[in-house]
Amino acid sequence: MSGNTIGKLFTLTSFGESHSSYIGGVINGCPSGLFLDMEFINKEIERRKPQRDTPEATSRREEDCVEFVSGTQNNITLGLPIAFIIKNKDIKKEDYSEIKEKFRPSHGDYTYFKKYGVNAYSGGGRSSARETAIRVIGGAIAKLILMKRGIEVVGSIESIGGLNYLTQQEEIKRELEVINNSGDSLGGVIRCKVKGCPSGIGEPVFDKLSADLAKSVMSIPSVKGVEIGDGFAGARLRGSEQIDNWTKDFSTATNHSGGIMGGISNGMDIDIKVAFRPVATLSRGIDCIDREGNITKVNIAGRHDRCVLPRAIVIVEAMVAITLTDHLLRSLSNNLESII
Amino acid sequence: MSGNTIGKLFTLTSFGESHSSYIGGVINGCPSGLFLDMEFINKEIERRKPQRDTPEATSRREEDCVEFVSGTQNNITLGLPIAFIIKNKDIKKEDYSEIKEKFRPSHGDYTYFKKYGVNAYSGGGRSSARETAIRVIGGAIAKLILMKRGIEVVGSIESIGGLNYLTQQEEIKRELEVINNSGDSLGGVIRCKVKGCPSGIGEPVFDKLSADLAKSVMSIPSVKGVEIGDGFAGARLRGSEQIDNWTKDFSTATNHSGGIMGGISNGMDIDIKVAFRPVATLSRGIDCIDREGNITKVNIAGRHDRCVLPRAIVIVEAMVAITLTDHLLRSLSNNLESII
Amino acid sequence: MSGNTIGKLFTLTSFGESHSSYIGGVINGCPSGLFLDMEFINKEIERRKPQRDTPEATSRREEDCVEFVSGTQNNITLGLPIAFIIKNKDIKKEDYSEIKEKFRPSHGDYTYFKKYGVNAYSGGGRSSARETAIRVIGGAIAKLILMKRGIEVVGSIESIGGLNYLTQQEEIKRELEVINNSGDSLGGVIRCKVKGCPSGIGEPVFDKLSADLAKSVMSIPSVKGVEIGDGFAGARLRGSEQIDNWTKDFSTATNHSGGIMGGISNGMDIDIKVAFRPVATLSRGIDCIDREGNITKVNIAGRHDRCVLPRAIVIVEAMVAITLTDHLLRSLSNNLESII
Amino acid sequence: MSGNTIGKLFTLTSFGESHSSYIGGVINGCPSGLFLDMEFINKEIERRKPQRDTPEATSRREEDCVEFVSGTQNNITLGLPIAFIIKNKDIKKEDYSEIKEKFRPSHGDYTYFKKYGVNAYSGGGRSSARETAIRVIGGAIAKLILMKRGIEVVGSIESIGGLNYLTQQEEIKRELEVINNSGDSLGGVIRCKVKGCPSGIGEPVFDKLSADLAKSVMSIPSVKGVEIGDGFAGARLRGSEQIDNWTKDFSTATNHSGGIMGGISNGMDIDIKVAFRPVATLSRGIDCIDREGNITKVNIAGRHDRCVLPRAIVIVEAMVAITLTDHLLRSLSNNLESII
Repeated sequence: MSGNTIGKLFTLTSFGESHSSYIGGVINGCPSGLFLDMEFINKEIERRKPQRDTPEATSRREEDCVEFVSGTQNNITLGLPIAFIIKNKDIKKEDYSEIKEKFRPSHGDYTYFKKYGVNAYSGGGRSSARETAIRVIGGAIAKLILMKRGIEVVGSIESIGGLNYLTQQEEIKRELEVINNSGDSLGGVIRCKVKGCPSGIGEPVFDKLSADLAKSVMSIPSVKGVEIGDGFAGARLRGSEQIDNWTKDFSTATNHSGGIMGGISNGMDIDIKVAFRPVATLSRGIDCIDREGNITKVNIAGRHDRCVLPRAIVIVEAMVAITLTDHLLRSLSNNLESII
Repeated sequence: MSGNTIGKLFTLTSFGESHSSYIGGVINGCPSGLFLDMEFINKEIERRKPQRDTPEATSRREEDCVEFVSGTQNNITLGLPIAFIIKNKDIKKEDYSEIKEKFRPSHGDYTYFKKYGVNAYSGGGRSSARETAIRVIGGAIAKLILMKRGIEVVGSIESIGGLNYLTQQEEIKRELEVINNSGDSLGGVIRCKVKGCPSGIGEPVFDKLSADLAKSVMSIPSVKGVEIGDGFAGARLRGSEQIDNWTKDFSTATNHSGGIMGGISNGMDIDIKVAFRPVATLSRGIDCIDREGNITKVNIAGRHDRCVLPRAIVIVEAMVAITLTDHLLRSLSNNLESII
Repeated sequence: MSGNTIGKLFTLTSFGESHSSYIGGVINGCPSGLFLDMEFINKEIERRKPQRDTPEATSRREEDCVEFVSGTQNNITLGLPIAFIIKNKDIKKEDYSEIKEKFRPSHGDYTYFKKYGVNAYSGGGRSSARETAIRVIGGAIAKLILMKRGIEVVGSIESIGGLNYLTQQEEIKRELEVINNSGDSLGGVIRCKVKGCPSGIGEPVFDKLSADLAKSVMSIPSVKGVEIGDGFAGARLRGSEQIDNWTKDFSTATNHSGGIMGGISNGMDIDIKVAFRPVATLSRGIDCIDREGNITKVNIAGRHDRCVLPRAIVIVEAMVAITLTDHLLRSLSNNLESII
Repeated sequence: MSGNTIGKLFTLTSFGESHSSYIGGVINGCPSGLFLDMEFINKEIERRKPQRDTPEATSRREEDCVEFVSGTQNNITLGLPIAFIIKNKDIKKEDYSEIKEKFRPSHGDYTYFKKYGVNAYSGGGRSSARETAIRVIGGAIAKLILMKRGIEVVGSIESIGGLNYLTQQEEIKRELEVINNSGDSLGGVIRCKVKGCPSGIGEPVFDKLSADLAKSVMSIPSVKGVEIGDGFAGARLRGSEQIDNWTKDFSTATNHSGGIMGGISNGMDIDIKVAFRPVATLSRGIDCIDREGNITKVNIAGRHDRCVLPRAIVIVEAMVAITLTDHLLRSLSNNLESII
């Protein structure tokens, strides 16, 4: 029941810091007989990597060569724990020497230190975005299971810096240039839809599908808001404007509920929005505090994302897929008919 | 690990439908030696009840007489399971006869039916707002624990129907009258702050305090969105506008992060916003669907809330308090010093 | 994850002390659509009650009138939490006044006190055998599920006071008379077989079926030993004497393994033996210790079992049935075929 | 909540098969600030290895070079997941080619196959004794925590093949020679005592310390019986012969209860006995069955233990230490005093 494991039947345990020798994960509860399509898994990993050519992302090169070390034979799952590791190839500790004993603002450095009484460095290392690679691999395997049921998880960028991603591309481009030149950063909103999810998935009253999805995506670094369906916009409407009226085939004419009613999927598309704050590691420099309470400017030029949104799509999808797979397996024992 | 239990060390198990003989709960993991202040607990229960005199709430009278049946002696907790029950006094099954075999729109009737294959009635009965009384009692006990550490959980209405609760009271009054006359309903936003929470609470990387709080409040009926700190608004700002710079005493000058950094409390106020959609049970009548797929208008006049916001404050506070208490107990073993 | 809940998918949460207003339980994870045969459940409850006419049991009359308060409709399970309560009808606190502030030897009085810092009385009340009524009800519902799969759980007395129950009936009768006259007590061994269990049940490497069964029965008051198959006797044999050789239909010629290989059921009868120590509440009087460390003789004449074995059969069966049902449900997601 | 994780607050997750590229584990919930004494950990690993010079053990050489890959800095724990891996150096798949498609008697080959529908090989690989190396490492870290509280876990061989280990050494030596010459195997009993355990540890009514210890040791390969204190012998005595009478300092004159009363430690030595059946892999050859139901003699000369008892001591200690550490951490929130 550790905080480093998510899920109840299909679980992902994550380990590793950005500066330990490996990061890695263990998937438990993956059914036997699943073909681990390495081409698909590697494509998913690729989607999370910094893209050299886009202005949105950092130029740092991460080589996420995943090695599956147990639980499969000829890439078929055995029903056993699936462990995987990724070597932290280029640990340049000197890169971090400047911030090693300083707490960055709006980071986990200080809170990890207060919690565990160990140095700032370790907190920074665990709460680093590097850890999200583990989630993507767990998510890729979850997706392979969901595909078997015809379920698809599709994320996209909804907005960057408050600008609509589809209609305001020019404005976004300009804003990114400004950010780039000024050493600033941008946040935004990822939208994730699940298509083909059958009705009946979710475990009220606490493990509602909506609740577990909210937890799952809120655990991603930099996430500060979650909406299901209309979300906060729906809280501004009248009931009559928001009701999802039935059509004859048990579909609904609208989908204000975002595919979840009473905490259980209703067969419509599941629709989630996830708010990412802009990263707090600004290349223009930030004011850190040391253990004695002295505030000092720190320069961390050039190594960090200016906008994580493009890389974050696959991470959101992964968390949604992991949670959905867990709930799909949990639903197998809902009804007596399934066991006789 | 059932979906009807929340928490890991301090847990609340909920049971009962709106039409079963009792609803009730079991609290496990409550430390021994806590005085259960029944006056306080009853006041909390009172805050959830429909308020007869306000236009916001229904005129239905709920008598929530809670009976603690185990785990205490002279109102002192024994470290044993604390069970409590509330009799469902006036089960008028005829009130529901009209909707018994019909699925209401935007309710759990249909999804529970698809999940469990039983009738619509039972899903409606479990996903009813009545179940939230259990949460309030669990929350009251959690608050009594938190008070011992000087931690206070304070909710308030932020907005109703998109109108600011503090500055637009006249507009809200008028809108509620319109809603009342037209048999419609309104949603809104509850804001909940935690004052006095020490730094170091939260269990990354999945059981981040932010993640577990998101789950906790998202499990409340009608909730469709959650924000920590700036939330979605923060996703529209630049990083430089959103950074919480240090002051010399390890406080921060601003609180965009909402008191949580890297998933762990940082000693600032925790700040959560929760979006409630308007209730879908409109007294003007709603279009239900029956099992055969026939859509029929159903009249459910007069018995339901037109705006749940006033009653929902204490429910949001309860879920926040339960989750925080759980994490407070979990934090006791973070550091070797605490066990030697 | 409280210590008062057992199981992972099919769970029983127990609450109540022998002197609280109710004892009771909540079953979560029971599939919907199960008919709760109250006649069967009441018969199971009856099997646990003290039998007035046998010399083995106490003359105290327990009226275990169970009331199911949620989760069913017309005795059909709804997939929702099934809560039940039993009123503690005749709480005669004066009966216990003599031992209220004294720690009995070989009881939980002292250890509960050291754990929770509350009085001896509460520990005695929770660790009382009365709590096992909850297990029997949970077990009865588990059996109803298992029956649907043709699985039967059958317990019997193997020995009392070291005497073989089948072959030494006269000796046992005489020994019970001696015990009765001298105000002493006897223990013994219950054997429990599971017939019709399919192969493939159990979740290694830690939640082996053998391991979870061991936990489950060891949690019964007075149990001090568990064996699967040959158990301790097998530890005295050579490997060649103990191997379960195959017959052509994948059965085994012998069943030294007790139906479990590698922690997973193999289709043969599951075979468990459970050692009960004699109860420590001797009617001849016992030496208690008070909080100040003074040792005083206490008379507790006439109210307690002299040999719990006859009543314990159904309790052992219940724990085995609960654990097996949990594992049966868990096995539903072992293989990809079951979810596509 | 996977079957490959044990514990609730202090947890060990195990992964790997005897023929995967690595075996390994993840420890969660280890408090920060613990010095991982690698000398001690390696000594513990050494104790589990086959001892070349004793007739009891196999001549196969296992190189268990453990690599800690996360969660520590300069060997100090950080409060983060501690992952470790052991390379499976000499995977000689041909060694197992003969049994690859055959189910050995009294092994997990067949049951894993029935459970997961994959080949016999994988079940054999996971249920192999090799996996116990993971337990020993988890146990070593648990012991380092327990030592901080002055708690010591000490195992010893009680008997081999029914012969008393202390008094019948000559007979055992002769019996081992017979076994060796005849290609047979021997089981026996390990006794494990915990010294210095404070009273108040254990979480009734289901997570009694006795119950969780029983599960923990029963999950070790080849274990078929567990006793706490007098165990089965106590079931043959009268109550008056078995009562642990108080002495003035709240100790007891005897320790029939094995240090646990009402499921909670009482401050006396905890005393457990664990029955190991003789290993079923006989070097004289065994009769396997293939998928078609044909029974064939298989020769597996020379590679396996003839008596695992010497190597099993540290494994039993490890499981006891892991469970005790978990319960020690869980006890931290028992009483309100510990949180204020």
